[in-house]
Amino acid sequence: MVEVLPRSRPGVEEGGRKTDQELEEARSREAEEETRGLSERAVDLARHFAGKIEVIPKVPVRTLKDFSYWYTPGIAEVSRQIHKDPELAFELTGRWNTIAIVTDGSRVLGLGDVGPEAALPVMEGKALLFKYLGGVDAFPIPIRTKDPAEIVATVQRLEPALGGVNLEDIASPKCFQILDDLQRSLSIPVWHDDQLGTAAATVAGLLNALELTGRKIWQTGIVLLGAGAANLATARLLKALNCDMGALTVVDHRGILHSEREDIDELMLRNRWKYELALTTNEARTQGGLKEALRGADVLIAASTPQPGMVKPDWISTMAPEAIVFSLANPDPEVWPHVARDAGAAIVATGRSDFPNQVNNSLIFPPVFRGILDAHAKGIPDVLALEAAQALARQAKVKGLTREHILPTMAEEGVFPEVAASVATKAVELGIARAKRTKEEFLQLAQSRMARPKELSRVLMKNGLLPPMPGQESD
Amino acid sequence: MVEVLPRSRPGVEEGGRKTDQELEEARSREAEEETRGLSERAVDLARHFAGKIEVIPKVPVRTLKDFSYWYTPGIAEVSRQIHKDPELAFELTGRWNTIAIVTDGSRVLGLGDVGPEAALPVMEGKALLFKYLGGVDAFPIPIRTKDPAEIVATVQRLEPALGGVNLEDIASPKCFQILDDLQRSLSIPVWHDDQLGTAAATVAGLLNALELTGRKIWQTGIVLLGAGAANLATARLLKALNCDMGALTVVDHRGILHSEREDIDELMLRNRWKYELALTTNEARTQGGLKEALRGADVLIAASTPQPGMVKPDWISTMAPEAIVFSLANPDPEVWPHVARDAGAAIVATGRSDFPNQVNNSLIFPPVFRGILDAHAKGIPDVLALEAAQALARQAKVKGLTREHILPTMAEEGVFPEVAASVATKAVELGIARAKRTKEEFLQLAQSRMARPKELSRVLMKNGLLPPMPGQESD
Repeated sequence: MVEVLPRSRPGVEEGGRKTDQELEEARSREAEEETRGLSERAVDLARHFAGKIEVIPKVPVRTLKDFSYWYTPGIAEVSRQIHKDPELAFELTGRWNTIAIVTDGSRVLGLGDVGPEAALPVMEGKALLFKYLGGVDAFPIPIRTKDPAEIVATVQRLEPALGGVNLEDIASPKCFQILDDLQRSLSIPVWHDDQLGTAAATVAGLLNALELTGRKIWQTGIVLLGAGAANLATARLLKALNCDMGALTVVDHRGILHSEREDIDELMLRNRWKYELALTTNEARTQGGLKEALRGADVLIAASTPQPGMVKPDWISTMAPEAIVFSLANPDPEVWPHVARDAGAAIVATGRSDFPNQVNNSLIFPPVFRGILDAHAKGIPDVLALEAAQALARQAKVKGLTREHILPTMAEEGVFPEVAASVATKAVELGIARAKRTKEEFLQLAQSRMARPKELSRVLMKNGLLPPMPGQESD
Repeated sequence: MVEVLPRSRPGVEEGGRKTDQELEEARSREAEEETRGLSERAVDLARHFAGKIEVIPKVPVRTLKDFSYWYTPGIAEVSRQIHKDPELAFELTGRWNTIAIVTDGSRVLGLGDVGPEAALPVMEGKALLFKYLGGVDAFPIPIRTKDPAEIVATVQRLEPALGGVNLEDIASPKCFQILDDLQRSLSIPVWHDDQLGTAAATVAGLLNALELTGRKIWQTGIVLLGAGAANLATARLLKALNCDMGALTVVDHRGILHSEREDIDELMLRNRWKYELALTTNEARTQGGLKEALRGADVLIAASTPQPGMVKPDWISTMAPEAIVFSLANPDPEVWPHVARDAGAAIVATGRSDFPNQVNNSLIFPPVFRGILDAHAKGIPDVLALEAAQALARQAKVKGLTREHILPTMAEEGVFPEVAASVATKAVELGIARAKRTKEEFLQLAQSRMARPKELSRVLMKNGLLPPMPGQESD
């Protein structure tokens, strides 16, 4: 879970006079106060608006007579046609643009297993993002079961209404099996944003960081800190990118992963994805912790626990020259960017919008879904997630690639339809698109479909149909 | 399934010179042509608009910064609050106004078992009606399973997102068990519109017809023709209204139902709802068919097969004086109104908008859901469906109760918020409302929530965000 957006920047003077510890304490206090105010306001606003999305007519209703087209008796013939050819549902209904955001509430934000009711406001927020950023009609579906097989069965039963599925906030490792099972059994794309969204954004930034430091991915030694949904998916995408898996090192709370670690049998039974990484990574059989793993490494990708100081500057100093550090825990990164840079890192990225190089899944999931939905895609193989990462990396160059701009920001709106069009075109190339169009056509579709919700909001606000923010004029 | 709305009236001159058979044939030819044109146009329009509803933001987004309230980090506190008290979801999210329209596609319109894909356009149309007429946010959920237990389990898992459930187009008799199981196991209202919507509209009309002909329901002999979802629910509501069940006669395709009919053992196993009616109705042990059942009866409620001529005028002539005939099959009633009246019926109702006295479930489900959702109701017992029927019957009197106006028409918009407020108030009285308000407050809520979608559509059309109808300017 990466934050979407701008927060005001706590008062840290880069290279200031305070000690690191003083800086971190001050920062932490400010951040806490800010979060407390924000939380209270968010609850007040949730109560005021009582929901973040609504369902509205997409067709004109001039008089009640029009319902004879939209409902009985006219609709019977639409039904009949789809009964003859079920694929027609992608053309004659809204299925092509409709997704479900499915969670069991087992790992919501940083809150843990709070259940489906408490997950609902988060899924509603995600549905809002899906529409506002991607033009996608998304239904929040928090479901009351924690059993992986029941989650899979439920989503399978929901498929007929859907053009795609976004899994969200499902605990690891069960999220891996659920994603696998659904991707194999459904004929629509299934995405787990905590895995693939974060991983694709990470890979996009990494590709540009490697280019800026003159590296090839198959000659790069990468350390992953944390072995949850995001980093396991990152490893999967790195493998698809021809990364040297033997030179990859995974570190979790028990230290460096290797094939003879004491928990290896347990992993084999409980988490075969991590188990496979234990067998195929760390060819050098390095043992120990992050300190040992970082020695000589080119890249650190940390997606672990929000605890600044977890990654020591001394360890970063032992990395290769021109080291790359992605410190993605939220809200607080595992190491503050200025600390990492002072220790010798050449390029630093975080999950936060108030530092340069924000690795943000909101850069990925809106254009990915826009693209696969416009192509009426039958699935989303990893190569399509990679295509999104590569397209996003290319789009960072529109405003110029620098060490402080390895990824577009959310404000660079123009780049997202381009990513969507790349994804859609790739789906056609792969032979998994039901709707075959040229890249130029996909681009135009994406542009208009991503612009519409903003225009819609503007018009409704202007006409008093979207109420203004209550109170606090200033915020 | 009752049609919603106005169709142009086939050219029949009431009391004209043609014979009944000529009239029926001409009518049937015209209706067929009309339906063919309408069907083609409905398919063209379905392709043009590719979906009938969309999901839009219900909260302002001034800049991307607002997402810190609608999503991370602010939303975490909303989650936390709901985790502490799950009932808060009705206040802090859109759950209070969100329903699922669930079908397995096993009995779609008159098309039969066409499956969930082919059911989707119909469910979308229903979602459009729910919003346009009731201000309700409805998700179409056609599910891929025909197994009653799996349908029940699936809806149970979906509950955390929902303020209510509308079951639709599920075959009888499994629809009865599914409704029972869900009503008992969920803490939100579950409604099957093909049962309760049609039954409540029927009962509303019947109450006024009884009043106009000076009858009391406990002294009235009623014949039900057809023993599907609608009539079985009508029987259930009649029982709750203190109807004399011994004087009720049910006729299906095998003739009059009675406790010694040859299929009684099969009914006991396969359809306990019909079985119970066999034991408790028809005290006189009349045997035979509709002809025998109608002799001396006060009321006929036909909800069977669209086949004019099924109910013979001669049989109607044998009914009691001032007979009441509801002939509800669609598109064609079991007996044409003028035929029934010529045979002596004092009051005639159909499912069609081009005759007086349309019995239409669209008169019921929008205000019923508006009411139960505004009350955040925990369920919808039959007494609440009866309250809706009684309120609708009262509202018919606003424009004056006559033999040709026993029910409001869809055009009498002002009456629906009144029905909604009655339903909500009754829910409070019954102790099943989470939100307790006065009737006046409920009325104001219903008025504004039912007016909003029309205003929203108007503004979007005016601003070019809801495209106009293509082609055929004249239609």
